[in-house]
Amino acid sequence: MKYTGTLSITVGWGDCAPSGAVYYPNYFRWFDTAMWKFFDTAGWPLRELEEAHGIVGLPLVDTRAAFKGPCRLHDALEIETRIAGFRRKTLEMTHTLTNSGKIAVEATDIRFWGIRHPDGSGRLKAEQIPAEVIAYFGGG
Amino acid sequence: MKYTGTLSITVGWGDCAPSGAVYYPNYFRWFDTAMWKFFDTAGWPLRELEEAHGIVGLPLVDTRAAFKGPCRLHDALEIETRIAGFRRKTLEMTHTLTNSGKIAVEATDIRFWGIRHPDGSGRLKAEQIPAEVIAYFGGG
Amino acid sequence: MKYTGTLSITVGWGDCAPSGAVYYPNYFRWFDTAMWKFFDTAGWPLRELEEAHGIVGLPLVDTRAAFKGPCRLHDALEIETRIAGFRRKTLEMTHTLTNSGKIAVEATDIRFWGIRHPDGSGRLKAEQIPAEVIAYFGGG
Amino acid sequence: MKYTGTLSITVGWGDCAPSGAVYYPNYFRWFDTAMWKFFDTAGWPLRELEEAHGIVGLPLVDTRAAFKGPCRLHDALEIETRIAGFRRKTLEMTHTLTNSGKIAVEATDIRFWGIRHPDGSGRLKAEQIPAEVIAYFGGG
Repeated sequence: MKYTGTLSITVGWGDCAPSGAVYYPNYFRWFDTAMWKFFDTAGWPLRELEEAHGIVGLPLVDTRAAFKGPCRLHDALEIETRIAGFRRKTLEMTHTLTNSGKIAVEATDIRFWGIRHPDGSGRLKAEQIPAEVIAYFGGG
Repeated sequence: MKYTGTLSITVGWGDCAPSGAVYYPNYFRWFDTAMWKFFDTAGWPLRELEEAHGIVGLPLVDTRAAFKGPCRLHDALEIETRIAGFRRKTLEMTHTLTNSGKIAVEATDIRFWGIRHPDGSGRLKAEQIPAEVIAYFGGG
Repeated sequence: MKYTGTLSITVGWGDCAPSGAVYYPNYFRWFDTAMWKFFDTAGWPLRELEEAHGIVGLPLVDTRAAFKGPCRLHDALEIETRIAGFRRKTLEMTHTLTNSGKIAVEATDIRFWGIRHPDGSGRLKAEQIPAEVIAYFGGG
Repeated sequence: MKYTGTLSITVGWGDCAPSGAVYYPNYFRWFDTAMWKFFDTAGWPLRELEEAHGIVGLPLVDTRAAFKGPCRLHDALEIETRIAGFRRKTLEMTHTLTNSGKIAVEATDIRFWGIRHPDGSGRLKAEQIPAEVIAYFGGG
């Protein structure tokens, strides 16, 4: 796939638990921020994707994270975000978080292409990802 | 004023900074939760106030907190929330947070009675608080 | 395994993103809280496990969550937490989050039994989980 | 006083409540981050102050924030942080948060100069701020 998003984080006081290491839900906050930045960097911000295609964000259906080493107060972290692949109605994104060059967390998200259900209930309906989107990001 | 809301909190791992004391923005999360619960307890939930009066929540215009003593992991806290008074377009709420019976934080919020601006801009316009609302909560 | 922890959550204003649905990192905050409560409920709080066995919490090495349905402002959620199994140095915990009786999120955590490394570096060293701990929680 | 810290924030998805405006406890997270960055920028990071003077952070005793206008998803914010003055044992810091050049939030923190109490209880004891610290930051 064509694009890589990068996000730099310096671990702050409020990001850490009493152990002095990052309180792990914060990694997911950062991965979510990294996802938004990925699409901005790639030149197709999420809100433009929403306008162009009628989707409502890219709702998460599955996420997995493996924690390989601790991150502590004041550590300088880098997150690299990529699209790993497309399926018919979902895409897979990966986040690789390094701390001083060593991988500290590896995460994978599955998100779906969802438009508002025509029944007006507010629910989302998974739809096929348009070919032009897949092509833009270098898939297919 | 007539009602008092109470909210019990047990300080959790993720609420604390590396010092082992509560990371202070979390106190504001709890005060916000306490405010919602206050209106539920008082028998006039915020969403019903919204429906009845066309307001959009009760936006905060000013908050102040004085920290008198630390709260630490596993401490059992109690928050008492009250309406301290009404002005024409604003109301003042207080939150008294105790830790084992001793006051740890005292906070005061000023919130305004805001309805959607008729110009359609999405901005809110401060309006006079209806007399029935003031009477219900024991003011005036 | 013998114990089940339960945690009730009412989705608050600050738990939700602009879509009105829960901002997903908050699920992990709740699962972490549920884990602490599980050990309290089971009669062997984490801090007593720490004192008895020299561990430093139960650090997370892997977590996975599958999102089956949205949770929205004011929804009343229940989380059931269990130990699904023990390996030599790790244990697997599951969290089943229901919203009005329907499963909304299913999550699995792998945590390790870590004691302070004797080299004094502050690093943790994975150790074999004591047989009495496994027996207490109904494993083995 | 001599130094000004600046912190740039782009409002993210997880920073906002269902209204689409920033959930207000997040402003305090940002002000805390701004405080840490202020001392880094000024050339005397907090951890060096801690080592040089035996303090334990700069605990907050009082904070006040006035909200003048909303901040919304994707808004680009700037925070300017300054020391407004010193008293014998406390200092006052201000944070001015602008959104597209307009002041959106003004906040004031009172923090105290606290060292570990000699009684070994873990409590902090307010001490006189050293003259060299006051001079360094341009006070006195």
